[in-house]
Amino acid sequence: MYNEQMYALGSKRSTIREIFEYAKQRADEIGAENVFDFSIGNPSVPAPKAVDECIRRLLDQTPSVELHGYTSAQGDRGVREKIAANFAKRFGVSLTADDLYMTCGAAASLTITLRALTNAGDEFLVFAPYFPEYRVFVEATGASLRVLPCDPNTLQPDLESLEKALNPRVKGVLINSPNNPSGVVYGAETLQKLAEILRKKSAEYGAPIYWISDEPYRELVYDTKTVVGCPMAYYDDTVVCYSYSKSLSMPGERIGYIAISPTATDNRALYAAVCGAGRSLGYVCAPALFQRVAAECDGLTADLGVYKRNRDLLYNALTEYGFKCVYPDGAFYLFVQAAEGSAKAFCERAKKQELLFVAGDDFGCEGYVRIAYCVPTEKIERALPRFQALAEEYGLRKK
Amino acid sequence: MYNEQMYALGSKRSTIREIFEYAKQRADEIGAENVFDFSIGNPSVPAPKAVDECIRRLLDQTPSVELHGYTSAQGDRGVREKIAANFAKRFGVSLTADDLYMTCGAAASLTITLRALTNAGDEFLVFAPYFPEYRVFVEATGASLRVLPCDPNTLQPDLESLEKALNPRVKGVLINSPNNPSGVVYGAETLQKLAEILRKKSAEYGAPIYWISDEPYRELVYDTKTVVGCPMAYYDDTVVCYSYSKSLSMPGERIGYIAISPTATDNRALYAAVCGAGRSLGYVCAPALFQRVAAECDGLTADLGVYKRNRDLLYNALTEYGFKCVYPDGAFYLFVQAAEGSAKAFCERAKKQELLFVAGDDFGCEGYVRIAYCVPTEKIERALPRFQALAEEYGLRKK
Repeated sequence: MYNEQMYALGSKRSTIREIFEYAKQRADEIGAENVFDFSIGNPSVPAPKAVDECIRRLLDQTPSVELHGYTSAQGDRGVREKIAANFAKRFGVSLTADDLYMTCGAAASLTITLRALTNAGDEFLVFAPYFPEYRVFVEATGASLRVLPCDPNTLQPDLESLEKALNPRVKGVLINSPNNPSGVVYGAETLQKLAEILRKKSAEYGAPIYWISDEPYRELVYDTKTVVGCPMAYYDDTVVCYSYSKSLSMPGERIGYIAISPTATDNRALYAAVCGAGRSLGYVCAPALFQRVAAECDGLTADLGVYKRNRDLLYNALTEYGFKCVYPDGAFYLFVQAAEGSAKAFCERAKKQELLFVAGDDFGCEGYVRIAYCVPTEKIERALPRFQALAEEYGLRKK
Repeated sequence: MYNEQMYALGSKRSTIREIFEYAKQRADEIGAENVFDFSIGNPSVPAPKAVDECIRRLLDQTPSVELHGYTSAQGDRGVREKIAANFAKRFGVSLTADDLYMTCGAAASLTITLRALTNAGDEFLVFAPYFPEYRVFVEATGASLRVLPCDPNTLQPDLESLEKALNPRVKGVLINSPNNPSGVVYGAETLQKLAEILRKKSAEYGAPIYWISDEPYRELVYDTKTVVGCPMAYYDDTVVCYSYSKSLSMPGERIGYIAISPTATDNRALYAAVCGAGRSLGYVCAPALFQRVAAECDGLTADLGVYKRNRDLLYNALTEYGFKCVYPDGAFYLFVQAAEGSAKAFCERAKKQELLFVAGDDFGCEGYVRIAYCVPTEKIERALPRFQALAEEYGLRKK
C-alpha cells in the first residue's frame, strides 16, 4: 500500500543512529561523562554571536509581513545579490544573483540539483570515501551511483579510475572537499587534472559532464596554507551545493544555496531546471528569516579554533600511539586505519574502552573508522588514555 | 542534458506570476495605489506578537548549539508532544508525538506524503476547484491526478462522481477544506458521506484508500457556526498535511507537519515510509527555531478579523452589484462566476478597471475567477466602485 522503498529508507536504522542509541543506554549505565561518542558530525561550537544579533535586529527593524512572508522561490533578491557578490569576490568568478538559488541546506541543494539534471538511465560517480546519503539522493532520481577508488595512501581521488569510468551515461561527478569522512582537502593540482579529464570527455561525448561540488565544510580548514579551490575557477559545467550548517553552526535552521557556474552550458536553462526541481520536490522557498541571516553573516564562521585544537590534539596523540591516519586539513573528522582487518571488529573492541566511532564500510572504504572530533576538547583529553590502551592491546608502536 | 520536465516546470511562468509582473509594470505607469491586485494568496496581516516574542525568548534562554542544532528527522520530541497533545484535545483523537512528522510547510507535507504512498501506476483524485500545484506534486511521484467535478451550485464535492471514479489503482483522495480557491468549507455531512464511500470501496478492494487532507486554511473560518472537521474523526486511513503559514502568518518560515491517524492501517509502517520519503527528498529536519515557535504558538492565530471584514465587505458588495458567488466560510478567497462565458475574457475586461484576479481555469473550474482578499481593507474599499462599474458594463442587476 505505501511505497516499500520509502519504508525501507525510513525504518532501517543507520549505523550512526544505532551507536547513538547505544551511547544513550551506556550513559544511563555508567554516566554520560564516561562514554566517548565520536560518531556524530554535529557542530559542537555555538553559532557566531552575529547570528543571534542579526535575528534580533531583523525582528526590530523589519515589518512582520515582509520578514516572515514568502520570498521568491529562488530566494530573496537582496539576499542573493549579497551572497553572490561575496562569492564572486572571494573566488574570482563572475557569479550574480541570477546564478544563485537559496535552499533548505546541503541535502536540499543536492536533491534539487540531481533532480534538475537526471534523465532515465543516467549515472553519477563519486570517489570513496563518500557521504552515504549521496546514494539515497542519487537513487531517488532514478539514476545510479558508482563508487570510484581513492589513493589508499593519501585518500585523494584516483583520477585514472575516473578517466576509465567515464562513459556517455555519466551525467556528473560528486566531489566533496573538505571531505566527509576523511577530512582531506583536494589540492589545486587534483582539481586541475579533474577538470582536464572532464573537459576532454565532455568534448568527446558532445554533452557536459557536471562537476557537482558538495561544500558544507568549505570554511572548516585549519592550516593557513590549505586553500579550498572553487571548481568554477577550473571547469565550466559546475554546480556548487553549499550549506551554512557547519560554517555558521546552525544545521537545524536548514539554509544553504545552489550556485550554478555563469559559464555552464546553457546556464539559464539549467537554472530554470533547478527552479523546476525545487518546485517539484515541494521546496516553496528557503526559510525567509534565515535567508537574511545567511546573507548578513556570509563569510563569518563559528569559532573554528576549537576544532583545530581538537584536530591537533587527537591527530598527534593517535599517530603517536601508532594509529595510522592521513593528515586531515579540514572538516571535523579523522579517518583512521582500523588496527585489525575488519573495521567493525575494531569498533567493537574500541567499545570496550567506551570509545564509539563509525566503521568506514558505510562510507565505501573498508578498513577505516571515522572519528568525529566535534566534541568538547576536555572529552578528547579524557579519551586519550583509552585510545592509548586500545593501541597497546593491538601492540602498536609506543613512544 | 538537464531534465526537460524540470526545465518546463521552472521556466513556464505561472498565470499568477504573469499577473504579478503586469501589476508591477502597471504600478510604474499609474501608481501602485491605482492597481488592485487580488491575485496572490499571501497573508496580509502580521504574525501574532507571540511569534516574535517567542523567538526572542528562545534566543535568550536556549544555548546556541541546542537552539540552532539538528533536531531528529521527524522533529524535536518536545515540539511534537506539545502539538500532538493540542491536536488530540481539539479534535478528540488519540494522536501522539509518534504520529507527527514536522515539515517545511504544506508543500513539503504533501510531497513527502505522496512520495511515501505512491507506487508505479497509482492514481490520486481531487475535486474541482483545486490548488494547481497538486498536479505537480502528484506527477513528481510518477502517479497521475484525476479531477472530479463539484456541485456547481455549492462548489461542494460531487460525491456520486467519487463513487464512480474509485478503482483499485486509486491510492488516495486529496481534500482541501477550507478550499483554495473557493473558500468553501465542507460540512460534517459531506465528510461523513465521503468516509462511508471510502470505507466501502477500501473494503471492496482490500486495500486502504487514503484521505489526504491539505489544511493550511484550517483556522481561517469567519462564521462562528462553521466547524472545520478533522478527517481522523470520520475515517481511519487519513493523513493530515498542515502548515502554520496562514494561521500564524509566516509563510516564508516554512513550518508545518504531517499527522498520521493513529488508527490508520499499519500506522507504524506508514510513519516509517513518511520518514523515508522525507529523507529521500532531502528534508533533513524542519527548521529548528521555527519548530519551537510553532509548538509555542500552536492554537494562536494572526488577526483574522481583517480577513473577515474584507470577506464581508467584498462578498456583500459584489453580490449587491449582481455578481454570483458561493458564500465562502473560510480561507481568503472568493470564487466568483465570470460575467461572460470565458473567465479569461472577463479577467481582461476587469483589467481595464485595474482589477486583477486569476481565471478559475487554472483551478480546474471554467467560468470562475479567484479573488484573493488578503489585502488592506482600504484597498478593497477603493476597489468597490470599479467592481460596480464592471458589473454595469455587463448589465448586471443594480440596486
